[in-house]
Amino acid sequence: MGKMNFLEKLDAITSKNKSLVCVGLDSDLSKIPKHLHGEKNPVLAFNKAIIEATSTIVQSYKLNLAFYEALGSIGFETMRDTLRTIPDDIVTIGDAKRGDIGNTAEMYARAIFDEAGFDAVTVAPYMGFDSVLPFVRFEAKGVFILALTSNKGARDFQYLEAAGTPLYKHVVEKVISWNQRKNCGLVVGATHPEELLEIRSMTEEIPILIPGLGAQGGDMEKSVKYGTTTGGTRALFNSSRAILYASSGSDFAEKAYEETERMRCEINSFRG
Amino acid sequence: MGKMNFLEKLDAITSKNKSLVCVGLDSDLSKIPKHLHGEKNPVLAFNKAIIEATSTIVQSYKLNLAFYEALGSIGFETMRDTLRTIPDDIVTIGDAKRGDIGNTAEMYARAIFDEAGFDAVTVAPYMGFDSVLPFVRFEAKGVFILALTSNKGARDFQYLEAAGTPLYKHVVEKVISWNQRKNCGLVVGATHPEELLEIRSMTEEIPILIPGLGAQGGDMEKSVKYGTTTGGTRALFNSSRAILYASSGSDFAEKAYEETERMRCEINSFRG
Repeated sequence: MGKMNFLEKLDAITSKNKSLVCVGLDSDLSKIPKHLHGEKNPVLAFNKAIIEATSTIVQSYKLNLAFYEALGSIGFETMRDTLRTIPDDIVTIGDAKRGDIGNTAEMYARAIFDEAGFDAVTVAPYMGFDSVLPFVRFEAKGVFILALTSNKGARDFQYLEAAGTPLYKHVVEKVISWNQRKNCGLVVGATHPEELLEIRSMTEEIPILIPGLGAQGGDMEKSVKYGTTTGGTRALFNSSRAILYASSGSDFAEKAYEETERMRCEINSFRG
Repeated sequence: MGKMNFLEKLDAITSKNKSLVCVGLDSDLSKIPKHLHGEKNPVLAFNKAIIEATSTIVQSYKLNLAFYEALGSIGFETMRDTLRTIPDDIVTIGDAKRGDIGNTAEMYARAIFDEAGFDAVTVAPYMGFDSVLPFVRFEAKGVFILALTSNKGARDFQYLEAAGTPLYKHVVEKVISWNQRKNCGLVVGATHPEELLEIRSMTEEIPILIPGLGAQGGDMEKSVKYGTTTGGTRALFNSSRAILYASSGSDFAEKAYEETERMRCEINSFRG
C-alpha cells in the first residue's frame, strides 16, 4: 500500500483508536508542572510525557503555533521534535490560521508541511482562494479553513448577512467548491451547535475540526450528534487545557490520560 | 523625552527621512545573489547589506514572517538578528496576519512584540475583536488590521455586501471603534485606489499600510494621493521584490538603494 492521503489517514486512526479526540498541545511554560522546569527543554519533556500517555486513545494532536513561537529561538525545534515523538499513524495538525497572498502562502505551506512536518494545517479565509490554494496543492495534506470560530468575536463579522446568507456560510460554500483534491476541512466552534448541524447538512464528507469544548463551554452531546457524519466520523474534537493541566503534580500524564479517556468515551457514547 | 508611542515614532521617521517607503524584507534564499550563499547565514547577510544601503531613506521595514518560518530552526534568529541591525528610529513591522482566540493571540503578541521585538504587526480580522485586543493592549505598538487586500482572492469575501456595505468597510468601521489607544492601522492594497480614497475619507488619522505596488501592479500616483492624509503622511508604501532583487550581482545593495530612492522620490512627488 502506498502513502495514505489525509482523509485515509484520518479515517484509519479514527477507526483504529476508536477516537475523535484531538489533544491540543498548546503547552505553556508557565502552566506546566514545576518539577519539569529543571529539564533541558521543559515544554518538550512535557509534550513527550503527554503523548506517551495518550497516543493509543487519540485521533489527532493539534499544536497551536503561537505557543511555540512565543518560546523564541527554541520554538521551532520544540515543535518539530514534539512532532517526531508522535506515532506515524496519528494525525498532526498545525493550528496556524495563516492567510496571505500566493507567494507568501507558499512559504507558510513549506514551513508547516515540509519544515515542521504536519499532516494538516488551519488557514484563515479572509484573503480568499489564492491564499488557500498553496496549501491545498499539497494533495496528501489536510487544510482546515476557519468557518465559524468558537470565540465571542465570531459575532463581529462571521454572522454578517450578504444576500441573506451569513458570511460563515459563504465560506463553507466556497470551501466545498475548493475541495477538488478532497483535502479540505472546516473549523466550526462547539459553541455554535445549531450552525454546526446546518454546516454538516451542507457537506457529508468534509472533516470538521471542532474546538471550544472544555474551557470555552461548548455542548458535547450536540457537537457530536451534529458535527459527525452519519457514520459518526470526520469530526475532530479538540481539547487542550482540560487535558494538559488535569493535574499540576507528578501525575500530570496519568491524569491527562484519564481526562482524554473520559472525553473519548463520552464522545463515543453520542456517535451515530 | 520618554519612549515614543507607535504613531509618534512613525511620524518622526516619516519626517526625518522624508520617506513613506516601507521595504519588505521578504528575503528568499533561492532568490538572493549567489555570491552570498557561502556566508554562514546568507539571508541575514543579505538583509544586513540591504538595511545598511537603504536605512537613511526608508520610513519602515516590513518582515513577512512566512519567509523566516520557511527557514526552519534558524528562522527566528535570522528575523531577530535582522531587526537588531535596523536603526532604532526606523519603524519595524512583523507581517504576520495572525488571528486567533484570546489566549492564543496573547501568545502571538508576546512572540512578535517581546521575543522578536517588532514595533508593529499585521493581524487578520475574521475572528473579531477578542482576536485583535491582545495586540492592541501593547499600547506603544502598532496593529495593522487587514481591510482590503491586494490579491485577486480579495474578491471572494471582502466585497460581500451586508446591509448595503461591503465587508471590508465593516472592518474599517470596527477598527475605527477599536482605536481607543490610537495604535490601530489598516492594510489596504494599492490595487484598489478608489476604495483607498473611500477608506481614507472615513479616517484622517489612522495609518494605512499599502502593499501591492511593483510586482502586483498597483497605481502609484492614485495610491499616494488617495492613501495619505491631507498632510501627506500616515501611509506606508511597501515594496519588496522590486527593491530586494533589483540586481542579482555583487551590486545588489547599491541597486536596492537606487530603486528605493527612485520610489521615495516618485512617492514624494505625489504627496500633498
